[in-house]
Amino acid sequence: MVNVNKNRIQLRLDALAKYGIDECGGWSRPSYTEEYRKAYDMVREWMEEVGMTVRSDSAGNLFGRLEGEAEGLPVVAAGSHIDTVKNGGKFDGNAGVVAALEVMQIITENHIQHKYPLEVIVFVEEEGSRFGTGLFGSRAMLGEISSEFLREKTDKGGITIAQALTNWGLDPGRIDEAKVEKGYYKAYFELHIEQGSVLDSLGIPIGIVEGIAAPVWLKVTLKGRADHAGATPMNLRRDAFLVAAELALAGEGIANSIGRSTVVTVGKISVKPGGANIVPGEVELFFDVRNIEVKWRTEAIIKIMDVAKEICTRRDVSYEFEEVMKVDPCILPDSITSIVEEGAKETGARYHRMVSGAGHDAQLMAKITDVGMIFTPSINGLSHCPEEDTDIEDITICTQALLNSMLKVIS
Amino acid sequence: MVNVNKNRIQLRLDALAKYGIDECGGWSRPSYTEEYRKAYDMVREWMEEVGMTVRSDSAGNLFGRLEGEAEGLPVVAAGSHIDTVKNGGKFDGNAGVVAALEVMQIITENHIQHKYPLEVIVFVEEEGSRFGTGLFGSRAMLGEISSEFLREKTDKGGITIAQALTNWGLDPGRIDEAKVEKGYYKAYFELHIEQGSVLDSLGIPIGIVEGIAAPVWLKVTLKGRADHAGATPMNLRRDAFLVAAELALAGEGIANSIGRSTVVTVGKISVKPGGANIVPGEVELFFDVRNIEVKWRTEAIIKIMDVAKEICTRRDVSYEFEEVMKVDPCILPDSITSIVEEGAKETGARYHRMVSGAGHDAQLMAKITDVGMIFTPSINGLSHCPEEDTDIEDITICTQALLNSMLKVIS
Repeated sequence: MVNVNKNRIQLRLDALAKYGIDECGGWSRPSYTEEYRKAYDMVREWMEEVGMTVRSDSAGNLFGRLEGEAEGLPVVAAGSHIDTVKNGGKFDGNAGVVAALEVMQIITENHIQHKYPLEVIVFVEEEGSRFGTGLFGSRAMLGEISSEFLREKTDKGGITIAQALTNWGLDPGRIDEAKVEKGYYKAYFELHIEQGSVLDSLGIPIGIVEGIAAPVWLKVTLKGRADHAGATPMNLRRDAFLVAAELALAGEGIANSIGRSTVVTVGKISVKPGGANIVPGEVELFFDVRNIEVKWRTEAIIKIMDVAKEICTRRDVSYEFEEVMKVDPCILPDSITSIVEEGAKETGARYHRMVSGAGHDAQLMAKITDVGMIFTPSINGLSHCPEEDTDIEDITICTQALLNSMLKVIS
Repeated sequence: MVNVNKNRIQLRLDALAKYGIDECGGWSRPSYTEEYRKAYDMVREWMEEVGMTVRSDSAGNLFGRLEGEAEGLPVVAAGSHIDTVKNGGKFDGNAGVVAALEVMQIITENHIQHKYPLEVIVFVEEEGSRFGTGLFGSRAMLGEISSEFLREKTDKGGITIAQALTNWGLDPGRIDEAKVEKGYYKAYFELHIEQGSVLDSLGIPIGIVEGIAAPVWLKVTLKGRADHAGATPMNLRRDAFLVAAELALAGEGIANSIGRSTVVTVGKISVKPGGANIVPGEVELFFDVRNIEVKWRTEAIIKIMDVAKEICTRRDVSYEFEEVMKVDPCILPDSITSIVEEGAKETGARYHRMVSGAGHDAQLMAKITDVGMIFTPSINGLSHCPEEDTDIEDITICTQALLNSMLKVIS
């Protein structure tokens, strides 16, 4: 068994972490910015160091390519992203890019034969932290981005994606060219931090992802009546916040009753008028509902809507649901998860089959190719914050599992 | 029976409503401003028209005085305020000032003898909408305002109360002189809009206030753990918002179980980090708890704290309570509420004995004199908004009740 190089992994993670350091002790490296360019250029140099041919597509996704021995065969790829959320950590995305590079470098250093061409993909704007539009790079590769979209979406400074692409040296009018046809890839692998506490709480270093539980976001608008908190007896109130409170608790109960890794979250809520002495007249809240199977996710949503009807009728508050986001969840094919499981087994370390609750470019890649995904533990489950951390030993073991898995499909 | 003049009441309400019209279709007339000056000067002219001697105290409270036939007797007063909340209505406060003036004018026009001196009081900064410090004028009359306080509190433009007083032509160094000793007043009456929907829902035009249920404001800080909404299974969460939801609902239950007009409200809440895809790690919410008796209010608070402990232990979320405001509630003396009841009866209209959930200058005046308070119905319970409305017939009936009541104590 060829072994990945822990020191090199560590050095590359440290090197990437030099870019995008913010004043709050974390990392802020939005896509198409100066800081992003530095990290991007560094990855490009590493690709060249590995002997890869480097190119960018018209969306700004970065590709390093090693030709295979045979011609005309589909590509086996691995990758992730190097953009970060605002005040995020240094592992989310970066770990997967470094791991993919490490796998390629081990392959070339050891002159391992591969029939299939290989690629490292660095997806742009995965987090959506600049334009509020996550998985942008992979969506462009699916041909899902229109030129109107590029002109409509702006960052906080009012710069459109089209403008950002132009500034980056790309032609927004050619966004369609980023599209990749089904059949171009044979398989796509991604190593990513778990961003949850499942592996850490189990003390297991490798997560084998069986499916990605993409979210539906439901915006719920509740309208009751704003009343004086002192002058309105309890029985004359139409308190929109108490509806929200019941609804959020019901959401938790629904997730638990459906089980099967269903998660329901109310993370964003605003209350109007918002004075301590005014009964809330209006509430806007967002439900994030996830499951790897559409069936269970839909069941959760239907139950939430049913219970909303009951609560709102009882409390004389009107409600409106709007589906503001819906991403297809996916179950990864057993053909590839079993290969990943083999690769994990060969490391000798314990592994755990699990669901990804977070969204990843991998879930879009799953629409055009077979996808395998490996999770590294997030210490205390922390992610999207400066404290985000993963033990280098765990990253190394998972990179080894990634290498072992890919070796099974490239020749 | 002498009758109040409905047309004059209407004209004066309309005249006051000319000042402080804002661009949002409501009234914004904060204390010590240009717009406030215009309304203040108009009231002063009306006082002079009634034949009153006019003066201001060192806080900016305005007084119109009619001497009594006997000398050295305490004053029978009536009043309210003419400052408004931001984008408020034209009845809150104004109705009480116009009613008090009407009573005095009827007394002078009809040469009604009165042994006791009479005063109309226009309290300044009742709403606290400029300096965030409600009941300012009446607190100054109790000697509760220090000169440090005047230098510390600022409006949104950074102007201190001291500076505002100076600009108004007053000497902030003489704030102590606003203090009125116990015994100076024989009784204080206030007509005010209910600001709730009790009278309107009963279809009764006169409310006789038995007590003022002043609030305690509790700031509750809940700290759980911010987690990825997709990547964190339900059973590994420490969701601070679900604690807030349980707590708000428990607050409602506690108010209902204690009864006795207890009200508990969560009107202000903020959730951090606040992303739709992040389990809330921290929540700050405010409880507004009111009763006219400290005993029941305290019982509600203790029960809220008990239930918070239970919920937070179960959900592994830490909590902290801070009492950010506490105003003494008061029960109005039966000696005077029975006089007001007589006065109401004489109008021939229906009346309803009730509790004031809103705070009023009257509750501070209650510390130094006997207080009687009359509520007019608020249509649909609306208040502190441009739609705030009271039927002129109801204001007239209540002004008549105010006159009838005052006639019983002035001679």
